[in-house]
Amino acid sequence: VSLFFDNAKILVTGASGFLGQHCVNRLLGNCPSLHIAVRNKSDSVRSGIVEHCADLRVPAEAERLISQVRPTHLLHCAWATTPGSYRHAPENIDWLYAGVALVRAFGEHGGKRFVGVGSSAEYDPSDGPCSEDATLIRPASLYGQSKAALWAATIACAHRYGFSAAWGRVFLPYGPGDAPLRLIPSMLAALTASKPIEVTDGGQVRDFIFAPDAAELLVELLGAEASGAYNIATGRGVAVRDVIELIAARFNAHHLVRFGAVARRPDEYSSLVADMKKVERTFSWRPSMSVESGIDWVLKSAENHAIS
Amino acid sequence: VSLFFDNAKILVTGASGFLGQHCVNRLLGNCPSLHIAVRNKSDSVRSGIVEHCADLRVPAEAERLISQVRPTHLLHCAWATTPGSYRHAPENIDWLYAGVALVRAFGEHGGKRFVGVGSSAEYDPSDGPCSEDATLIRPASLYGQSKAALWAATIACAHRYGFSAAWGRVFLPYGPGDAPLRLIPSMLAALTASKPIEVTDGGQVRDFIFAPDAAELLVELLGAEASGAYNIATGRGVAVRDVIELIAARFNAHHLVRFGAVARRPDEYSSLVADMKKVERTFSWRPSMSVESGIDWVLKSAENHAIS
Repeated sequence: VSLFFDNAKILVTGASGFLGQHCVNRLLGNCPSLHIAVRNKSDSVRSGIVEHCADLRVPAEAERLISQVRPTHLLHCAWATTPGSYRHAPENIDWLYAGVALVRAFGEHGGKRFVGVGSSAEYDPSDGPCSEDATLIRPASLYGQSKAALWAATIACAHRYGFSAAWGRVFLPYGPGDAPLRLIPSMLAALTASKPIEVTDGGQVRDFIFAPDAAELLVELLGAEASGAYNIATGRGVAVRDVIELIAARFNAHHLVRFGAVARRPDEYSSLVADMKKVERTFSWRPSMSVESGIDWVLKSAENHAIS
Repeated sequence: VSLFFDNAKILVTGASGFLGQHCVNRLLGNCPSLHIAVRNKSDSVRSGIVEHCADLRVPAEAERLISQVRPTHLLHCAWATTPGSYRHAPENIDWLYAGVALVRAFGEHGGKRFVGVGSSAEYDPSDGPCSEDATLIRPASLYGQSKAALWAATIACAHRYGFSAAWGRVFLPYGPGDAPLRLIPSMLAALTASKPIEVTDGGQVRDFIFAPDAAELLVELLGAEASGAYNIATGRGVAVRDVIELIAARFNAHHLVRFGAVARRPDEYSSLVADMKKVERTFSWRPSMSVESGIDWVLKSAENHAIS
């Protein structure tokens, strides 16, 4: 990775978020100038990193950040992600509007390379695996609509200012740093305490990706020149039920899992899996973890934390 | 039309523009409260119209306009349209960014129905006639990219604020009010003066629509509740050469037309024609003019102007 970033001044937004922190880990030590933007000041900042505080839902703050840092490379990870509410949170519109201001300011201040974190929620996956340039963009959620609109605006800004831009559509990330209310952490918490956990029927098929793998591909995108959208996924569909049973088996706790106790969301697709042909054509990146090994990693890590 | 707008407060932006003026003509007398936004103050404003001056490339002016008028219905026609330069004019980004501010303010102030003027330039027409929900959105020009991005942002804002929104993708409008530098007016000017005119080979097939017909369909959209994109076109493809020859024939001036003297733009599609099935399923509207009768209308109107 290092060679890509020899003369780069990189800015990562959402750097304390789930994917942002893995991207920072990946970049740290591989670039001469690493700037991060976070909402709230950190207690301590690792050496090699310059931290900036900004509320990037406010256009003027987004513009100020860019004019102060003047990054050559911008990795835009910041967005509303509160489990349960982010899909329809009104602040998605703030992220969209201020996002356009951010991307525009990046162009106005001479930015060269933009990578934004998109989502599988932008696709209509009714016709099978989602392919970046063939599957229809028809998001069902405000989250997916706002992400899709920011990418559309980014294409225009990239054309206007002459920078190159890519968009990583992340499927279902999991792993270290995952929010406590999301599926895997909430299962671990319940089963560790020998408490029952209520879940859907679990028949939904999803493309799970280990968060450090997702970050690795996002950083690879940042170092590349290819424009366009790229799936950040593995290409393998796994039923949510299989993931749940994998974890339950490790706890010998199948009896604690109440399948079907929670209804699926009405707008949930039965299958949402990436077609990875475009990524495979363009990058040498391959996911380091299958969902089985990734979950083993998460469980081991939880055990170690419990011991220490 | 009148019944649709009984309790409406309508705001038309770009009201002095090519399509905007035909929309205003169509609305005038059919709604109790008609507000228009123009860049520069008019010398005289017709009775029944309230005029507002605003530069809608500036977000704060767009927001102020909406908070002052508080329209229930917004027909957004304003955009950069200078012949020759609008496709790649940097100000497309201003129209996009301030457009998001406008649409968002419309939602925040209780707006109910939005219709925006989109463009056939949003489509990739390689696979034949363009269908609103199946043809890929892959604009080649900054103009098309910016229009597509504003529609994507509008979808998100409509979801967020609960208004209904439609987007009229206009194909090739012509007719009264057309800018002097566009094909038909520039031909009329040259041939009236018996001067030669240089044109491309003319093999491009386009979907010409008489501007008052386009306005009629936009106003019908404004009065409807259907959400989504709709083509503003006729569904009939006509070679540009045929239009040129039609006009030349009326002047007995084939010898003045230099076909092929101008190169096609590199990003020009050989065919850009609308699939009108969705419009025909939803609306009783049909175009009143074929391109032959529309051009006759334009020529007669030019003669009358010359006589008077």
